[in-house]
Amino acid sequence: MYYPEPISKLIDSFTKLPGIGPKTAVRLAFFVLNMKEDDVLDFAKALVSAKRELTHCTNCGHITDQDPCSICQDTQRDEALVCVVQDPKDVIAMEKMKEFNGRYHVLHGAISPMDGIGPEDINVPSLINRLKDESIKELILATNPNIEGEATAMYISRLVKPSGLKITRIAHGLPMGGDLEYADEVTLSKALEGRREL
Amino acid sequence: MYYPEPISKLIDSFTKLPGIGPKTAVRLAFFVLNMKEDDVLDFAKALVSAKRELTHCTNCGHITDQDPCSICQDTQRDEALVCVVQDPKDVIAMEKMKEFNGRYHVLHGAISPMDGIGPEDINVPSLINRLKDESIKELILATNPNIEGEATAMYISRLVKPSGLKITRIAHGLPMGGDLEYADEVTLSKALEGRREL
Repeated sequence: MYYPEPISKLIDSFTKLPGIGPKTAVRLAFFVLNMKEDDVLDFAKALVSAKRELTHCTNCGHITDQDPCSICQDTQRDEALVCVVQDPKDVIAMEKMKEFNGRYHVLHGAISPMDGIGPEDINVPSLINRLKDESIKELILATNPNIEGEATAMYISRLVKPSGLKITRIAHGLPMGGDLEYADEVTLSKALEGRREL
Repeated sequence: MYYPEPISKLIDSFTKLPGIGPKTAVRLAFFVLNMKEDDVLDFAKALVSAKRELTHCTNCGHITDQDPCSICQDTQRDEALVCVVQDPKDVIAMEKMKEFNGRYHVLHGAISPMDGIGPEDINVPSLINRLKDESIKELILATNPNIEGEATAMYISRLVKPSGLKITRIAHGLPMGGDLEYADEVTLSKALEGRREL
């Protein structure tokens, strides 16, 4: 017990966060001691209210402080388009782009048999249920371009295809600003496969 | 406004911490959403109580939840030895070593004319005041081995020397496990200068 108890408790709490080791936790805890009291109180309140007030939208699964979420409630958005993503952070990334005006469906994960995660463990059933709404015309699969994401996209595609709904997958290829020389083989092969006529 | 308000406030709070940029703040905030509610409450409480309950020991300046601090109160410790350090974290480092059984004096900084920090701005006056206690026999200057730390040690040494008190400075030299090949010139010169007969 080198530290007075209040600070050692704070260090413990910081250590529980991802990517924060014991030394960083000590540095952060000492920083808090020198912060303005109001800022510390705001921080504490923000922690509790983020945990308590945020839930998942019952319609799309996005994190929200109102249910349904503001995106699902927004009548200006195109209800015919539903973009399926793995994570609430992916919704934020899409929204930052400011070019997509449809709605979302957040799976909260991807199918991964290796980890024992099947379609029932992520928000696939609620997606299928939601697709009964005939106003939806196109399902854009924007799961991550890795094994789990691809498998999930493939699974949903096969499941929904028979209903005749239009199903698309976001493009794979070279990232903008990237360099052909440093691209890995799989990306390059996807870029070639997905080439478009100019 | 891409994020619901409770989480964007939490992200803002995390961003105020040192070394945490916007992306890490988002990652930490989302991690908090998935933490157990008890852990989040403990975290919030720890923040507030670390800020509110901790003060500086009026005797030595170390952070503490009781005044005088547990080190100053401990009668088992040698009151004849006082180790002067710049920061409460330095006290922790010394205590971890488990070999020093004296007391401390925390300056909370170092003299730095470039930044307008003089002896009056750090805990030098309280040190001088404390030295009136005749039970103190030796002052160990353990400020950091850099320009400000050296200047502070030199200043205190000149100030206290006339009183006849024994004043020592921690040794400079090669760190254990270090490599002579990679040592900088100043360290090497200090190591040579401080050589001891075997």
